[in-house]
Amino acid sequence: MVMKETVKKYSTVHYRNYLGLDKILNAQELRSAQLDDKPAHEEMLFIIVHQVYELWFKQIIHELESVLELFDTDNVDEKNIGTSIHRLERVIEIQKLLVAQIRVIETMTPLDFLDFRNHLFPASGFQSLQFRIVENILGLPEDSRLTYNGCPYFSVFSEPNQEKLKDITTKSTLFDAMEHWLERTPFLQIGDFNFLEQYKAAVAKMIEKEEKAIKSSPYLNMHEMEMRLQMLGNTDTYFQSVLDESKHMELIEKGEMRMSYKATIAALLINLYRDEPLLHLPFKLLTCFIEIDDALTTWRYRHSQMVQRMLGNKIGTGGSSGFTYLRETAIKHPIFKDLHNISTLLIPRSDLPELPAEIKKALGFYYSSQQSN
Amino acid sequence: MVMKETVKKYSTVHYRNYLGLDKILNAQELRSAQLDDKPAHEEMLFIIVHQVYELWFKQIIHELESVLELFDTDNVDEKNIGTSIHRLERVIEIQKLLVAQIRVIETMTPLDFLDFRNHLFPASGFQSLQFRIVENILGLPEDSRLTYNGCPYFSVFSEPNQEKLKDITTKSTLFDAMEHWLERTPFLQIGDFNFLEQYKAAVAKMIEKEEKAIKSSPYLNMHEMEMRLQMLGNTDTYFQSVLDESKHMELIEKGEMRMSYKATIAALLINLYRDEPLLHLPFKLLTCFIEIDDALTTWRYRHSQMVQRMLGNKIGTGGSSGFTYLRETAIKHPIFKDLHNISTLLIPRSDLPELPAEIKKALGFYYSSQQSN
Amino acid sequence: MVMKETVKKYSTVHYRNYLGLDKILNAQELRSAQLDDKPAHEEMLFIIVHQVYELWFKQIIHELESVLELFDTDNVDEKNIGTSIHRLERVIEIQKLLVAQIRVIETMTPLDFLDFRNHLFPASGFQSLQFRIVENILGLPEDSRLTYNGCPYFSVFSEPNQEKLKDITTKSTLFDAMEHWLERTPFLQIGDFNFLEQYKAAVAKMIEKEEKAIKSSPYLNMHEMEMRLQMLGNTDTYFQSVLDESKHMELIEKGEMRMSYKATIAALLINLYRDEPLLHLPFKLLTCFIEIDDALTTWRYRHSQMVQRMLGNKIGTGGSSGFTYLRETAIKHPIFKDLHNISTLLIPRSDLPELPAEIKKALGFYYSSQQSN
Amino acid sequence: MVMKETVKKYSTVHYRNYLGLDKILNAQELRSAQLDDKPAHEEMLFIIVHQVYELWFKQIIHELESVLELFDTDNVDEKNIGTSIHRLERVIEIQKLLVAQIRVIETMTPLDFLDFRNHLFPASGFQSLQFRIVENILGLPEDSRLTYNGCPYFSVFSEPNQEKLKDITTKSTLFDAMEHWLERTPFLQIGDFNFLEQYKAAVAKMIEKEEKAIKSSPYLNMHEMEMRLQMLGNTDTYFQSVLDESKHMELIEKGEMRMSYKATIAALLINLYRDEPLLHLPFKLLTCFIEIDDALTTWRYRHSQMVQRMLGNKIGTGGSSGFTYLRETAIKHPIFKDLHNISTLLIPRSDLPELPAEIKKALGFYYSSQQSN
Repeated sequence: MVMKETVKKYSTVHYRNYLGLDKILNAQELRSAQLDDKPAHEEMLFIIVHQVYELWFKQIIHELESVLELFDTDNVDEKNIGTSIHRLERVIEIQKLLVAQIRVIETMTPLDFLDFRNHLFPASGFQSLQFRIVENILGLPEDSRLTYNGCPYFSVFSEPNQEKLKDITTKSTLFDAMEHWLERTPFLQIGDFNFLEQYKAAVAKMIEKEEKAIKSSPYLNMHEMEMRLQMLGNTDTYFQSVLDESKHMELIEKGEMRMSYKATIAALLINLYRDEPLLHLPFKLLTCFIEIDDALTTWRYRHSQMVQRMLGNKIGTGGSSGFTYLRETAIKHPIFKDLHNISTLLIPRSDLPELPAEIKKALGFYYSSQQSN
Repeated sequence: MVMKETVKKYSTVHYRNYLGLDKILNAQELRSAQLDDKPAHEEMLFIIVHQVYELWFKQIIHELESVLELFDTDNVDEKNIGTSIHRLERVIEIQKLLVAQIRVIETMTPLDFLDFRNHLFPASGFQSLQFRIVENILGLPEDSRLTYNGCPYFSVFSEPNQEKLKDITTKSTLFDAMEHWLERTPFLQIGDFNFLEQYKAAVAKMIEKEEKAIKSSPYLNMHEMEMRLQMLGNTDTYFQSVLDESKHMELIEKGEMRMSYKATIAALLINLYRDEPLLHLPFKLLTCFIEIDDALTTWRYRHSQMVQRMLGNKIGTGGSSGFTYLRETAIKHPIFKDLHNISTLLIPRSDLPELPAEIKKALGFYYSSQQSN
Repeated sequence: MVMKETVKKYSTVHYRNYLGLDKILNAQELRSAQLDDKPAHEEMLFIIVHQVYELWFKQIIHELESVLELFDTDNVDEKNIGTSIHRLERVIEIQKLLVAQIRVIETMTPLDFLDFRNHLFPASGFQSLQFRIVENILGLPEDSRLTYNGCPYFSVFSEPNQEKLKDITTKSTLFDAMEHWLERTPFLQIGDFNFLEQYKAAVAKMIEKEEKAIKSSPYLNMHEMEMRLQMLGNTDTYFQSVLDESKHMELIEKGEMRMSYKATIAALLINLYRDEPLLHLPFKLLTCFIEIDDALTTWRYRHSQMVQRMLGNKIGTGGSSGFTYLRETAIKHPIFKDLHNISTLLIPRSDLPELPAEIKKALGFYYSSQQSN
Repeated sequence: MVMKETVKKYSTVHYRNYLGLDKILNAQELRSAQLDDKPAHEEMLFIIVHQVYELWFKQIIHELESVLELFDTDNVDEKNIGTSIHRLERVIEIQKLLVAQIRVIETMTPLDFLDFRNHLFPASGFQSLQFRIVENILGLPEDSRLTYNGCPYFSVFSEPNQEKLKDITTKSTLFDAMEHWLERTPFLQIGDFNFLEQYKAAVAKMIEKEEKAIKSSPYLNMHEMEMRLQMLGNTDTYFQSVLDESKHMELIEKGEMRMSYKATIAALLINLYRDEPLLHLPFKLLTCFIEIDDALTTWRYRHSQMVQRMLGNKIGTGGSSGFTYLRETAIKHPIFKDLHNISTLLIPRSDLPELPAEIKKALGFYYSSQQSN
């Protein structure tokens, strides 16, 4: 970076210098131009597409790191929730481009790719350090990662970079930061209002009401009635189990869940009462994590499709059966799955316990409450 | 449909009547409006989104059926290749909307959905007849379909509709039509030029050349040299096996392939010589089938994501674990996989046998050839 | 709508009936099928594309009307800001589809359109009642509308529909509701803090500081210095004028502005202090109006492009030179332009007056403030 | 570029080196980091977005130049039509990203931009040399360009770059190349078949038929009949004028048209008979130019919207009222308008003269014709 003293405030800035275009636009060295009689026309696209990906990855890391910093405290300033949402929504917009960009790669046909593919050995997209950093900041756990050709994902990197990657996962990730923030939610017990008890009671009442209605319905035949009662029974069992802290612990040990019991209950509260002003932004924040996860997974999926189209059954330039590996990661590498699963615990608004006036006030805005007095 | 004699040419047409808006805009009957004290705001979205899907499905069927008709002959008029591509490209554009539209559904939160979900039992997206028709016209084989809750996909339909669905698969599908059209390709043997022999020779030469280069390279260390030679060996074995007709038959019997040997070789020729004017449109046609397949699969995948987000682990309104089923279909229901796999057989242009002048002329355009004389 | 007593709770619902598919899928009556020897293949697309548009328009009206209702009060419940944002963001997502959908229409070539265009006379997209309702609910003023072929936009509709359209504009529109809500903002004067005075002082200070810096910069040559000072002078004049209430009134009378002075100042405050928790959602709400306006305008623009491509210089089926008219509306029919122009009044955060602690607390959340005590 | 002899075939390649990531990822020098106490968070986005734009511009230039080279001959090889379409379709896909990317910029709010905007003076997007190169290769005429702040567009560039830009326009542009290629079309006169005569006769017959039908229609009232006859009259006059070579020349002199008479007639023929196999690719090529033009214009329009949102009425960092200028270019800088206007000349397929068998054969494929014998 240019040293501070050499930079002149009010000195004129030129577009080309400001954007470092001498670097950016001179970084396309076609191997085919160096090794063959004539350059392969399509290698330019191949290089530029990947460079654009890396620029976006840099931007995504810039945003995720800044959000992590805002959350890496025991007392997140409310202002920062809004700022974080804003930055995560930007990440989501960028992810849409990452997915859309695959269509541009797909304009290169498999035969075109063969014109220079041989020169790339063994370079491979799996060697993108920044992509691994994104995964690690978000909180993809090391031990849930698929191996690739029998090797751990980090083995393709230099030792310092391996250290860097490991460092991220041992420090607080966005998953961790979110979990701790949820665990600190002050609303699980406000005065006499115990959220969990109220919620359990509401679930029980909902199921009882439903059972009665089904049994007395003249519009269901025997089979339909049985089927609906059976579904209701499953629902009951399900709620019983997830609301039991020890069962929750078991699921975590088995690796079927990851988020702590307390954080899960807090996320449930935020989802159920998200209409209250004070919970609107927290709800939005949780939604952002779900959307980032879904967008990342969609990208993995589309990436796998593209690789299949380009290489068929062939093994990739890195010596791997890339297509299958990538498709597997689309299924097995979600990070915020526990947030998706909150949906399972929701009950209709009409069955929700009415909040006591005092709580409602607490969840409203100070100023407007004051005004209305 | 209005009877011909009652329609008056040159009579004035009004937008509202022409588009049947009295039907279209009065077809939103909210169950919540009928059953609850007040309508659920979000049920309108739920209904309209699905109605839009069904309108697009109707359009897709309109296009696919027209293409099937153009191809359902032993002598496809060359004019119809262009027309078919045009219509299939439209299908692909519509599919992009189908995928994009999922974002609109996702603006309905899981809690919003619960406001009316209970009223929908057991209606389900699995009951979309038109979607099944699309799958069947494309050529999804009955026996490769996943069952859903242990039942075949067609069991939710009335008997006449089940017949209709079966009918489609027993007649010629687009997969079949494409396969037969490929098998009739006249270019596999032109005069003395036998494509398959030439291609086999080229593959052998390419592998030999490569082997020699690797062995004599001063830039590879022992390990790298071994690794590259091993990859080359795999490639060799692979080519040997796919070019052997009896092995191909075995793979078909095992269900690992579907397209006939002859059609496969023809698709390979089209891919390798797609720059020749006469093969440009056939190549484009094959690409369309690949893109329709990929878009369909992407939609299945995004659909599964949306269902997971909406319902978590819950079973769908049709009583099924919809999310898992949908994700499985994204992986197991591709239709034109064999076209994707052609990529595996491609060799670099520089290793391709030069076409004899006579063949080149045959693959060029008559008029321009004449002109250049 | 089905009468309440005839609907059976728990009665089974079928997908096809629920979605009214018998109506939806039987509303495509091709004029070419009635008038010509064989139907024009592409007329199906033409009808279905427009039907999809109308379905989305219905959904947009559903959302806009609900937001209008939430805002049509002197005391907007804070909860409803969040709900409104949610619904307006959905409108924006739908608008993206409306724009994307134009690509599907563009797969119909001009020659294809001619196969049935003659039968449509004089039906025209200008006869979409729902589109006019959308414009009117948003708040497009009657007197700023372009005429079309010399006729006002409403002249193509039946008298009852003309009444309906007029009714909307005479009642409160979303523009009006937003303006009144802004005018009621309680934060312009909190205790001793007068926002407008503070802001004027900050502007003056910023300009003074800037002027000094420019004059003393050793890095600017004469020409550059003059240019920058001139720009600064313009800025000064500009701020002077817009902060003067009587000048603001003049601009409104001239038709160059529309939003009241008080609402403008409130919108400025929200933009400048949007990081404060209490102002985050109001800021988001204003952003939604800007985005809806931009998306509507983009659609008008793309629509005009498509019409140009389809008809060239030809006059449309409604007898109008549609392309030019549509492009003009893209430029002259924005509704929330005054919100765009707030940007002109912003000053850098570093020049903003620090809010007094008391105000900051008022703009924070009650609960978290309490917690931190 | 690395010298050929120093590059080692079969030497291993690493992703990071191959992509020049040391250059690419170290080219983000935030002015705010150099001049202020702390870097402006959003300046990173500003830089990266523009760098991505420049990378895509480089790719677009790579494609356009290659197409220009293929066409810069008096005898375009038929093979190259297919290749050109393929490359132009890629340009179109990239342009979609350019437009989509604006949404990412829009996640930066106007207030965020102010955190560093002051440091950028007078750098401006108008200083993108590559963008001007794109415009010039496509064929935007120098004399139709809007000036900006009273200065010609090239004045912001260094003298060598000004020369470079001028050079492009004095050599053959894509507009020129396309025009000459059209003028060489051999199909305007084939044997006894004179396209223009046949077409004029068909137009006359169509209008006569139409007139008769209108006059004898019992379904039209007086007013409607007059209106339709008047439209028909206009159509007649229009066709008369455009088919008259001297009138065409006048329009060119007035600057209302640009494409030569002969090229226009050839483009008309291609549009009317685009179903014939030999004309399918030429038709596709013309469509590509229309789509590139439309996409470029859409980008200009969205760009202007974004600038308005960011700066309101403020003048841009380059000292210009950027928003108005950009919006004007969206309207006044189309390049292939003459191709759009071909639509005006089309007549329905049912009114087209049937091609003589001999011509049809000429426009079919040699091989298939031979086969069918």
